[in-house]
Amino acid sequence: MQIIGEKINGTRKRVGEAVISRDEGFIRDLALSQVKAGADLLDVNAGTPPDRELDDLVWLVRIVQEAVDVPLCLDSPNFEALAAAVSEVNRVPMINSINGDSEKLANVLPLVSKHGCMVIALALDETGMPKGVQDRMTVIRRVFEATRAAGIQDERVYVDPLIMTISTDVRAGVTVLETMRTVRVEFPDAHITGGFSNISFGLPGRALINRTFLTLVLEAGMDSAIIDPTDNDFHEALLTTELLLGRDRFCRAYTQAYRSGRIGKKRMPA
Amino acid sequence: MQIIGEKINGTRKRVGEAVISRDEGFIRDLALSQVKAGADLLDVNAGTPPDRELDDLVWLVRIVQEAVDVPLCLDSPNFEALAAAVSEVNRVPMINSINGDSEKLANVLPLVSKHGCMVIALALDETGMPKGVQDRMTVIRRVFEATRAAGIQDERVYVDPLIMTISTDVRAGVTVLETMRTVRVEFPDAHITGGFSNISFGLPGRALINRTFLTLVLEAGMDSAIIDPTDNDFHEALLTTELLLGRDRFCRAYTQAYRSGRIGKKRMPA
Repeated sequence: MQIIGEKINGTRKRVGEAVISRDEGFIRDLALSQVKAGADLLDVNAGTPPDRELDDLVWLVRIVQEAVDVPLCLDSPNFEALAAAVSEVNRVPMINSINGDSEKLANVLPLVSKHGCMVIALALDETGMPKGVQDRMTVIRRVFEATRAAGIQDERVYVDPLIMTISTDVRAGVTVLETMRTVRVEFPDAHITGGFSNISFGLPGRALINRTFLTLVLEAGMDSAIIDPTDNDFHEALLTTELLLGRDRFCRAYTQAYRSGRIGKKRMPA
Repeated sequence: MQIIGEKINGTRKRVGEAVISRDEGFIRDLALSQVKAGADLLDVNAGTPPDRELDDLVWLVRIVQEAVDVPLCLDSPNFEALAAAVSEVNRVPMINSINGDSEKLANVLPLVSKHGCMVIALALDETGMPKGVQDRMTVIRRVFEATRAAGIQDERVYVDPLIMTISTDVRAGVTVLETMRTVRVEFPDAHITGGFSNISFGLPGRALINRTFLTLVLEAGMDSAIIDPTDNDFHEALLTTELLLGRDRFCRAYTQAYRSGRIGKKRMPA
């Protein structure tokens, strides 16, 4: 599974402060710790007001690239900020994100196409959040029409089926699992990604719910995730599930992580 | 999920000693603790030498029935012992087990049919252990031909697809998952059961592997398991997975178990 480190996000209070105050050391540490923990890409989101976001995002890209060598996932709702950031990167980046909104597609796809970027495609459009599997698939099919028309190969598209909250919709989990299986069949070369934190919102034991859901989505075909790579619970669920799905030859990744003490911690009463 | 408590099994040293010495208190405690922990049925296996197994199994059945009220899963390779035990039970029992061996089927099915028993059907036959999905399905289809011919409804048959060891066959997990999905499609009224301990044999962190596999098999259609119901790790994985699969209305079972402290324990370094 391809891990996109989520921690450099200015909408988090402490990170936003570091962006505003140009705290290079703090950002570098966030970058280094995530790559050390196994991040394959780093999401970079300035999260600051529109009038300064472009400058902040470009600054973040520079600082992160000085610290680490992984590709970046440029995360902004602002097309100009994305375009400026793309011109700063050393390695072909991922763009976060497009969706079924045709204005958005018209803006961002030429940039993706021109620079050979990867791109995250959210299963929503200007009419709002989708409810079921078919709503999601309608948007996803429209996005692939547009990406293909722009000459973007399916394998550069990362579908985010939008993991929603199980405490308000008991079918939120199965809806996403079924969407993933459908994407796997209809767009076998595409990737499937997304964040996890919504699924457990409003419930106790969120880490337990999130890591159990990771097991289910891995089996359903998710092959990328936007997560905190320093969370060992995620690594434990990831390595154990990949072992069980026959993706860990000679059980090597699992046994090495276990022997190093990174996974397999004992439990104690809460 | 229907939980079949596995602990009253005389092939375990301490239990075997209790059977031989007619230690009623020990057996009663095993029965009570499993039912208290949520067992829906109790497996009862004397595990003693053939010349005394019939008497031992009948004794076990009497003692367990004095202690608890759940149906029993009568577990013996010996047809006479099974027949004697069936005549002792207060509630319609489950028989553990039949398989594709035609002599075994000819012996046991009349007993199952006459008493309306449930029956566990192992996906193996006299030629030995199956290798892949198709080997398993060939045996399973033959078993259903026989059970249907004997007038046993599919919903009384509990298919055990035989969970094998991932450390010697990296595809052991996916083989079982695919077998379960195939059984769900071909025999939608049948149940799917089995034990877990084989999957993790020879690897470190066996409880971690077992509980992660529980999440995967629940999604694949397993609806019964032969386990230690006093193992809270299993309950944690079970309740969290059923929540995520939309089977826990209003998230009630999960949140109640969490608030009671039964699940959601914190971890500490190993």
